[in-house]
Amino acid sequence: MSTVKLVDENTKHPKVKAVFDDIKATKKIDRVPNIWRALATNPDHLELCWTRLKAIMQPGKVDMLTKEIIALAVSVTNSCRYCINSHTAATQKLGLSTEALGEVLAVVGLYNQMNKLSDAYQVEPDILPKLE
Amino acid sequence: MSTVKLVDENTKHPKVKAVFDDIKATKKIDRVPNIWRALATNPDHLELCWTRLKAIMQPGKVDMLTKEIIALAVSVTNSCRYCINSHTAATQKLGLSTEALGEVLAVVGLYNQMNKLSDAYQVEPDILPKLE
Amino acid sequence: MSTVKLVDENTKHPKVKAVFDDIKATKKIDRVPNIWRALATNPDHLELCWTRLKAIMQPGKVDMLTKEIIALAVSVTNSCRYCINSHTAATQKLGLSTEALGEVLAVVGLYNQMNKLSDAYQVEPDILPKLE
Amino acid sequence: MSTVKLVDENTKHPKVKAVFDDIKATKKIDRVPNIWRALATNPDHLELCWTRLKAIMQPGKVDMLTKEIIALAVSVTNSCRYCINSHTAATQKLGLSTEALGEVLAVVGLYNQMNKLSDAYQVEPDILPKLE
Amino acid sequence: MSTVKLVDENTKHPKVKAVFDDIKATKKIDRVPNIWRALATNPDHLELCWTRLKAIMQPGKVDMLTKEIIALAVSVTNSCRYCINSHTAATQKLGLSTEALGEVLAVVGLYNQMNKLSDAYQVEPDILPKLE
Amino acid sequence: MSTVKLVDENTKHPKVKAVFDDIKATKKIDRVPNIWRALATNPDHLELCWTRLKAIMQPGKVDMLTKEIIALAVSVTNSCRYCINSHTAATQKLGLSTEALGEVLAVVGLYNQMNKLSDAYQVEPDILPKLE
Repeated sequence: MSTVKLVDENTKHPKVKAVFDDIKATKKIDRVPNIWRALATNPDHLELCWTRLKAIMQPGKVDMLTKEIIALAVSVTNSCRYCINSHTAATQKLGLSTEALGEVLAVVGLYNQMNKLSDAYQVEPDILPKLE
Repeated sequence: MSTVKLVDENTKHPKVKAVFDDIKATKKIDRVPNIWRALATNPDHLELCWTRLKAIMQPGKVDMLTKEIIALAVSVTNSCRYCINSHTAATQKLGLSTEALGEVLAVVGLYNQMNKLSDAYQVEPDILPKLE
Repeated sequence: MSTVKLVDENTKHPKVKAVFDDIKATKKIDRVPNIWRALATNPDHLELCWTRLKAIMQPGKVDMLTKEIIALAVSVTNSCRYCINSHTAATQKLGLSTEALGEVLAVVGLYNQMNKLSDAYQVEPDILPKLE
Repeated sequence: MSTVKLVDENTKHPKVKAVFDDIKATKKIDRVPNIWRALATNPDHLELCWTRLKAIMQPGKVDMLTKEIIALAVSVTNSCRYCINSHTAATQKLGLSTEALGEVLAVVGLYNQMNKLSDAYQVEPDILPKLE
Repeated sequence: MSTVKLVDENTKHPKVKAVFDDIKATKKIDRVPNIWRALATNPDHLELCWTRLKAIMQPGKVDMLTKEIIALAVSVTNSCRYCINSHTAATQKLGLSTEALGEVLAVVGLYNQMNKLSDAYQVEPDILPKLE
Repeated sequence: MSTVKLVDENTKHPKVKAVFDDIKATKKIDRVPNIWRALATNPDHLELCWTRLKAIMQPGKVDMLTKEIIALAVSVTNSCRYCINSHTAATQKLGLSTEALGEVLAVVGLYNQMNKLSDAYQVEPDILPKLE
């Protein structure tokens, strides 16, 4: 159960209503996902989060499927249940098959292991990125 | 400074030498990166790590740049200094520009924030992935 | 379900009973929270944990609401479900409104993002704290 | 060493220059901290980060010292070296003594321990926050 | 609910069937644990994971109970619910009593606290491991 | 550099001096490790931390080498540089060879990977620990 009472999807609060409408229009969905209804308990923060997410989660130099795969990799590494669920669904919607999902997660798992081994042995960097 | 003495690149230990040679041939580099020289203090573990990494880090249903971007997203979320350095270099080698790197990291930063907000409000999943 | 059988609230074990009584008296509650009933499976550890928590969680140079807000910030960053629940309730009891909670969590979310961006770019510290 | 070349503080890039000027004016400092010079390699992301941080890091229902203490608690829990350094300095500037810092960190350390014990025993929540 | 449809325990897929049979024979159990049924959605990754785990999780210079205790310590520090559950059961099967489990977790909790205090004060290492 | 000025090893502060003397006597060392000199900036917290650590880090139902291995596993999973260094040295002092260290870290790396895969697929526990 969430720690706050989720704001009603049909709220009349002008700032919240504007964000909720934009979420539904942008994502082409007819319900407001729970996380936004929780964030709406502080309307200013809701607006800050949504406008920033909307600005970042659009195709740019990096395509949308890659962006959702990054979001999934981060969410798995953070063990965020709600987020893993939501980004797994998003990658599937964008065409990632269950077997390819397994390949993505193989990389996620592999580097969670390699990260810890690198930290454990405290090895110094050997390849410095070329600074442009 | 690393917590173990790095194994010499020119070691004669047969199992270690075979892995070191394969690392240099596979990655087309002429030096063995430090992490592998540290892992070589336990030759069996070195071999297990390398064969598994080699099997996963080749193009399959997911291309190499996407795999390196996933590795970078995981490494940043785990704050692994050596790994961030190494995967930043790898993505640059595969053609990711500094500005596009900024876009990748924008997604990484965004979902580290959204993950914590989702956990904080303990919202229930609203979209169940369709199980095939 | 917990991984151990929770110790009965009315246990006669002298060390456990003494701690349980002190928890109820100190927190002015009439039930022993589940975490303490789990810790009671090792009475020495129960006593160590409780006496230390009691010594730290009292007003000192930092007031109780700030201490509970710190506890919530840590629990969210660690994604500890039980703890987020418990410290959200504690901050509410001490007067934090739902909207102010949103402001606290906005800061928590913001720095989870900024932490990762700082790690990702591996920037060197620019402000050294003045050592007194 | 940072993974990207830090953008020059005196850059003529209009969007970057505007943000750099605003950072110096808002924070009343005469140098641009390194993290912003790194973020400036992607000017759009720089602007998104700064405007959002500025909106959240001002006194509201929660005062500035409490906000910096939250930022420090998050940074310690994430082990972000640059951020711990920067927020330790910020809390000192706002008047937190070294001994009081010790009290703040005592709470941070305590709940990193209690979080893990709660997770380890997988106890169910006993206090549900009252939903308003 | 899992994010993928778990593969049937009686699948005819040759690679998956071979791994499932080996898991049951090696662990002397008559059901395939859920995590392996999820991994089986990508048969190559299933095989890589199982052969590697089997090679590491056998007595060597370190005995099996110590290895399961390490697995539990890692799982608690990562807050992995499924894994805490599974490794708590494994340590019990190998003879660890509930009170001794409390002692193991006391160490896990203690160092989660000390780790954060060490990071918070950013102290330099004082004891360098002797490199052989 | 540490964020606070380390307290002098020869301080006359009675509470701090008593703890420093006890640390040197208990650990049979002639210098006070840096973390304790940092914690001494808040003498009450120093005493709480030291007495608790001393109570837990003594042989009980679990021997000292296993306790130091647990401490190392936690520190690696948390990526705590100071702590990894210190506990690697401690396990070596207690007789763990470099190759056996590699076997310990193999388990640590393995379960950091398996933890993330378990979280990623969100599988339900299949083995419930028997509650005594």
